[in-house]
Amino acid sequence: MRITAVRELSVSLDGDIANSLVNFSEHTISLIAIFTDAVRCGKPVIGYAFDSIGRYAQSGLLRERFIPRLLAAGPDELLDPAGERFDPRKISRLLMRNEKPGGHGDRAAAVGALELAIWDLNAKLEDEPACRTLARAIGRDLPSCPSDIRVPVYAAGGYYYADDGLDRLKAEFQSYLDAGFTKFKMKIGGASLASDIERIEAAIAVAGSGAALAVDANGRFDLDMALAYAGAIEPYGLRWYEEIGDPLDYDLNRRIAEAYAGRIATGENLFSVQDVKNLLRFAGMRPSLDVFQMDPGLAYGATEFIAMIDALESHGFDRSHMHPHGGHLINLHIAAGFGLGGCEAYPGVFQPFGGYPGDCRLGDGLVSPTDAPGFGLEQKAELAPFLKQLSDGA
Amino acid sequence: MRITAVRELSVSLDGDIANSLVNFSEHTISLIAIFTDAVRCGKPVIGYAFDSIGRYAQSGLLRERFIPRLLAAGPDELLDPAGERFDPRKISRLLMRNEKPGGHGDRAAAVGALELAIWDLNAKLEDEPACRTLARAIGRDLPSCPSDIRVPVYAAGGYYYADDGLDRLKAEFQSYLDAGFTKFKMKIGGASLASDIERIEAAIAVAGSGAALAVDANGRFDLDMALAYAGAIEPYGLRWYEEIGDPLDYDLNRRIAEAYAGRIATGENLFSVQDVKNLLRFAGMRPSLDVFQMDPGLAYGATEFIAMIDALESHGFDRSHMHPHGGHLINLHIAAGFGLGGCEAYPGVFQPFGGYPGDCRLGDGLVSPTDAPGFGLEQKAELAPFLKQLSDGA
Repeated sequence: MRITAVRELSVSLDGDIANSLVNFSEHTISLIAIFTDAVRCGKPVIGYAFDSIGRYAQSGLLRERFIPRLLAAGPDELLDPAGERFDPRKISRLLMRNEKPGGHGDRAAAVGALELAIWDLNAKLEDEPACRTLARAIGRDLPSCPSDIRVPVYAAGGYYYADDGLDRLKAEFQSYLDAGFTKFKMKIGGASLASDIERIEAAIAVAGSGAALAVDANGRFDLDMALAYAGAIEPYGLRWYEEIGDPLDYDLNRRIAEAYAGRIATGENLFSVQDVKNLLRFAGMRPSLDVFQMDPGLAYGATEFIAMIDALESHGFDRSHMHPHGGHLINLHIAAGFGLGGCEAYPGVFQPFGGYPGDCRLGDGLVSPTDAPGFGLEQKAELAPFLKQLSDGA
Repeated sequence: MRITAVRELSVSLDGDIANSLVNFSEHTISLIAIFTDAVRCGKPVIGYAFDSIGRYAQSGLLRERFIPRLLAAGPDELLDPAGERFDPRKISRLLMRNEKPGGHGDRAAAVGALELAIWDLNAKLEDEPACRTLARAIGRDLPSCPSDIRVPVYAAGGYYYADDGLDRLKAEFQSYLDAGFTKFKMKIGGASLASDIERIEAAIAVAGSGAALAVDANGRFDLDMALAYAGAIEPYGLRWYEEIGDPLDYDLNRRIAEAYAGRIATGENLFSVQDVKNLLRFAGMRPSLDVFQMDPGLAYGATEFIAMIDALESHGFDRSHMHPHGGHLINLHIAAGFGLGGCEAYPGVFQPFGGYPGDCRLGDGLVSPTDAPGFGLEQKAELAPFLKQLSDGA
């Protein structure tokens, strides 16, 4: 079995929205296709994946460093001993050859996209949904009936729009409620504290309770602002208070954890297991309370993510407190396969990547992978034209 | 004053050498040229810089994200209030627009190369060496006579070669001694401990004493191996023990600092001020003893480096303990301009970037910038053909 070609397409995100720190209108995503000479149902097996939502495509790094390493590798560096499946662990090592330690930024997304496409390939070679392949890799059993695999999901939205208002925010959250979501997340820190409190109250009016609503500062706050918000939101009993300050400022996180009784969530901007270990050691995260949101597509893929789960559990945390960032099909399979606490969804935004196809049976705050082989990206109508563009080019 | 064009060239490093973790033969560097409509001596002023030695060129990131932001900017986003000089602080902000916090990896090198080229431009607009421009930016005075600016420098080498041996190592260090170096650094961790001790003793035989020799593990060791080496090398009273474990494993560094009485050096793989603050808080670094080696070209440039100096000094450390990684002209100017403890040199390797032109008057373990305007890269014979290639293309 050989890799015959690897293609990448930089795809722009739809929409002109902003959180407290960045505008997403210029953000892009690397969509990857790995072509093989393996055949299923008369067609060559193609592995698809992408990095994740919210940062940038990695076209340059992929073409300059990572795709050439993959294409130059021999079967021993790519395949399991039987030569019938790809070996994600070997491939991760191969991709990182001659890469120095530290500096876990853009390259972690480039490698993540490729590594995830390898899982899509392996699942398609087994003719099974990727969540089953992922589960098997760590010795987990999944229910044999696909409809019994139900993953808690929340709707992430509540961004700042150029033309914004409380009525728009309530209508947005009402549409999520109508779609079957029971938990929600909104942005804070892009307006004054007083204005954000009004927004939070408006969202709670739709969500039903503070416990159904998380808030996300996207790393914007310094300590004083973080504590001011903490004091103001504590009475609402919110679901969690997310990415409060600089994601690498472990000391700030610790101080907030000491002052704020509610749940804290962070981790989406930590891109290596070493960064996660630092979070566990220094940031005051509280077992049985706080939430971790590392995103495999931004952080070297599922192999590194398994090491992150191990690091958490060896520090006394539980994987049920892991909710990966990036509401899309790949992380739904990650959450289902690894038995995490849940995943997010961006039903209204970040097309063509955000949200789930109708076959995923969203309802009662739960969502299921379909029984399509791999991550099932081919079933997502918005994404299909881009996949076709990649496969036509091969 | 306008930026008229920005060009980048990916340049391969000469030589087939390895440290304990990577082989450098496939490493590349981004050489940058920023063209302006300003004229000095009848020629348009061009700012040159590069990221640094030891990782990779950032051609893709530069073309996809950072050069377009620079070219799209208006004068208010680029220039000081008088419109006569570029404003590195403003330009740093501009380059990082819509970049999320965290993830300080490849992009830090892309931004670093551009930001440093801005300093080269400003120095050429003043018709002065860049060390003077850098010193003025932080309110420092430099001696008015160029020959009075003397920077401590050590020769970094002692890599592992395909065809290696103690005689080769001794001959290499003898050549550095003959060239005027009095302090040296060699690699460890690429061979057995016993074999490395033989190499260290061979190097000391040339260097004259352990105090003249530093050793560099390039982040390879786990705690057990780090402590085994610490115990074995402590009797030699070496100059320092560098980058012992994973550069982000602050806890491991702290444990070694508690066990090893000698000096520890680290920081070359920390690419943001936030990572440096974590090192200062969690890694057990000892004021008046340990050494910091952050490298501006890999870490967003001189503006971020000034913030790193401030972070160190507010934690009770002194800038005389800063020796930036990357032995080349740019960091010689950084060390001279900011009054750091010194810089390194790679006299035998990493051409065309490593080492200093003859006019830099190397001797007695000291080296001086020349009086060429900017970083004086045009004076480095090995680099000149690449600069010409960039300027001819404009």
